[in-house]
Amino acid sequence: MTEDLVAANRILVNEGVLDAYGHVSMRHPANPARYLMGRNLAPALVTAADIVEYDLDSHPVGAPANFGHFFERFIHGEIYRARPDVNAVVHSHSPAVIPFSVTERPMRPLYHMASFLHPGVPVFEIRQAGGMTDMLIGNPALGRALAKTLADKNVALMRGHGNVVVADTLPMAVFRAVYTEVNARLQMQAIALGGPINFLAAEEGEKAMRVLENTHLRAWNIWKRTALDNDAR
Amino acid sequence: MTEDLVAANRILVNEGVLDAYGHVSMRHPANPARYLMGRNLAPALVTAADIVEYDLDSHPVGAPANFGHFFERFIHGEIYRARPDVNAVVHSHSPAVIPFSVTERPMRPLYHMASFLHPGVPVFEIRQAGGMTDMLIGNPALGRALAKTLADKNVALMRGHGNVVVADTLPMAVFRAVYTEVNARLQMQAIALGGPINFLAAEEGEKAMRVLENTHLRAWNIWKRTALDNDAR
Amino acid sequence: MTEDLVAANRILVNEGVLDAYGHVSMRHPANPARYLMGRNLAPALVTAADIVEYDLDSHPVGAPANFGHFFERFIHGEIYRARPDVNAVVHSHSPAVIPFSVTERPMRPLYHMASFLHPGVPVFEIRQAGGMTDMLIGNPALGRALAKTLADKNVALMRGHGNVVVADTLPMAVFRAVYTEVNARLQMQAIALGGPINFLAAEEGEKAMRVLENTHLRAWNIWKRTALDNDAR
Amino acid sequence: MTEDLVAANRILVNEGVLDAYGHVSMRHPANPARYLMGRNLAPALVTAADIVEYDLDSHPVGAPANFGHFFERFIHGEIYRARPDVNAVVHSHSPAVIPFSVTERPMRPLYHMASFLHPGVPVFEIRQAGGMTDMLIGNPALGRALAKTLADKNVALMRGHGNVVVADTLPMAVFRAVYTEVNARLQMQAIALGGPINFLAAEEGEKAMRVLENTHLRAWNIWKRTALDNDAR
Repeated sequence: MTEDLVAANRILVNEGVLDAYGHVSMRHPANPARYLMGRNLAPALVTAADIVEYDLDSHPVGAPANFGHFFERFIHGEIYRARPDVNAVVHSHSPAVIPFSVTERPMRPLYHMASFLHPGVPVFEIRQAGGMTDMLIGNPALGRALAKTLADKNVALMRGHGNVVVADTLPMAVFRAVYTEVNARLQMQAIALGGPINFLAAEEGEKAMRVLENTHLRAWNIWKRTALDNDAR
Repeated sequence: MTEDLVAANRILVNEGVLDAYGHVSMRHPANPARYLMGRNLAPALVTAADIVEYDLDSHPVGAPANFGHFFERFIHGEIYRARPDVNAVVHSHSPAVIPFSVTERPMRPLYHMASFLHPGVPVFEIRQAGGMTDMLIGNPALGRALAKTLADKNVALMRGHGNVVVADTLPMAVFRAVYTEVNARLQMQAIALGGPINFLAAEEGEKAMRVLENTHLRAWNIWKRTALDNDAR
Repeated sequence: MTEDLVAANRILVNEGVLDAYGHVSMRHPANPARYLMGRNLAPALVTAADIVEYDLDSHPVGAPANFGHFFERFIHGEIYRARPDVNAVVHSHSPAVIPFSVTERPMRPLYHMASFLHPGVPVFEIRQAGGMTDMLIGNPALGRALAKTLADKNVALMRGHGNVVVADTLPMAVFRAVYTEVNARLQMQAIALGGPINFLAAEEGEKAMRVLENTHLRAWNIWKRTALDNDAR
Repeated sequence: MTEDLVAANRILVNEGVLDAYGHVSMRHPANPARYLMGRNLAPALVTAADIVEYDLDSHPVGAPANFGHFFERFIHGEIYRARPDVNAVVHSHSPAVIPFSVTERPMRPLYHMASFLHPGVPVFEIRQAGGMTDMLIGNPALGRALAKTLADKNVALMRGHGNVVVADTLPMAVFRAVYTEVNARLQMQAIALGGPINFLAAEEGEKAMRVLENTHLRAWNIWKRTALDNDAR
């Protein structure tokens, strides 16, 4: 369980979704009113000993006194509260999505690996929720506003900041975070080629998403193996 | 023989053509009605023990009961059936080709290393063959439709999905898969530079293809050496 | 102290800001009229033994006679003289900023990680200061002219050359140099997407900059750890 | 001497100028009517034992009978014959220059590191010299035609193929090959930013080139060290 959460941190760094910033969490398997996430630490450094339990108000539960906590942990708490179907959340500055967050072209799925984008990718404008801020989701109200923008989607962009990616399992959230980044790169290239783009149709997206339920673990398993091999080295 | 097929899997991962998905096969050297391919496994993990023999209906022959098989193996079986001249097939989500699969600019060879593209690069539109699908070549009919689009060409794109690359030998199929990806990147850049593009003429393409018959093994040999060195480490 | 300066050299190479060229310096902690920088050497090779003390005229103080010195060290001396608030300076050929130095679109912050760009990114035109030169800041007058263009900003581009990045601490200068490069890449992509770009507002930039005061050490610490780990290998 | 030529092969692979193809040569230090180059082998595999001496007609002199020779060695022989000032030649499929070889925008220096491009970068159109060919410089006449297009410049592009880079020393030829590739990438990005580009003026280019006479060895030395370290591993 914590092994998977540690691996998720490593994988998202290896795949270029996280750098020294961003965080990934999972809902507590035994208590849906709690979630697990690393303490305030670069994702590449998170070990099992750094995993903290938080309640849905994002208060740490039983963490060592010397632990720091992510300022933006409300992203996670408020999404878990608003979305009972969600069991894992990734927040990142995934580089290729940033340009989509500050321009007007919506992200859409170019291929089946990103079919989970087909329900739409809303953009959260923090100015609407909080006026002129420091851009961070630093309190519960902003977390709730972000969760409201996310609504029932799988991915939401955050203007001038990054994105959030959710799923019902941790491996699926990691898979979606990686292929959101890949699709963003490919969509930029398709736009540069010019002319209309033949995106996945809604029905294709729906059917392809169901396939990913079966196939995403192939990626997860090899990513996890690589992450743990590197640690053992 | 299986060593080469294992190496082909590693090489295509190293060169960025395959990630955790996609597959490479070769026709059985002793029985043209059979082909060899890894079982359902990430390409980086395939070993000699994972190679399965399939008939042209893509039924496994003598594989261990616990082996899973690629859902899309019909790509391979139906191309081998339709193309007696083909002895190796690569199916990938080669990233730089995806944008070409969903826009209207045809892929064409920018330089001699991609001269095998000069006969044309058709795009398979699965909607024409199967209506609204999950985008996968999940049955023999879709495999036959893809083989029909490929016709006598060396490469076909699959809209919103990836591509197939074929050749009369495994090293040549790998070579073509790698330089299809490279040419796609270069063609995007040439388009961004603006103005007309001076592609290889048909006669240049034909002559340069013949040269690659002699020179492609230089790449194969060093790629294979690197792949096996990494395994030995 | 020198350990941090050695680490800064390694980090900027690892993050793609420096190649075999460019230099990073810090003001002497005990004597504000002096600064510390590696001798004329590729940044990846700098060790504690290569650190030289310079006065603000950029004369070396007590350096071994066989040491060479960077031709462009006046960049550092003149900025330290003009900017008492600055305690660290990076000069690089940071690749993604070069195109912005020779075209007319100003660099602006796309996201909070680059909020330190919000006061503006002036471009130094060496032709105005020195006519037709070899493009280098090879004397104190050119150093002063560059410092004048930089004024009270955090980053200035140098036309056809690179940039300078300053901060009140060495880790912050390194952080800003890295995210200037990242923001340049992202801004190019946003421009390619077309349409208006929703940059950080001035107030957002100001507030987000204050957050970085607290969070930049998370990046510095993991970058330094990686740099020193590589050295120990 | 041969150590430097072996290192040059490794460096050009490490820096992404050569892949499994391309070659680098140097004029024989003791006999200007001879040049030295690896036998027909991927550049990453060349060792001192693989270096062959050629006369200016590109006939091997005293090479083991089992050695193969590059089909395109006439590039080297004919340039050495036409350009007594040239002592090293790189031929590559340097990826970022390919798009410039097939479109109409001339390559020009964006920054001082590529100032050696300021005399102009001609494009060799093999159709003018040889009609419909296999794109290769496979005979002395084509080699002479390429040398004629190169004229007194430092770099010439070869349409649909790659480029040649020359200098009076081997380290300088390697330096120029690397920064030709870098400048091509940066020029593509500057073009994408839109509007006029402020290239180096001729006088700036001339002066900056003279500086590189002194500074290019900083890059060469660290590249060589890295290349030999990797070999020793």
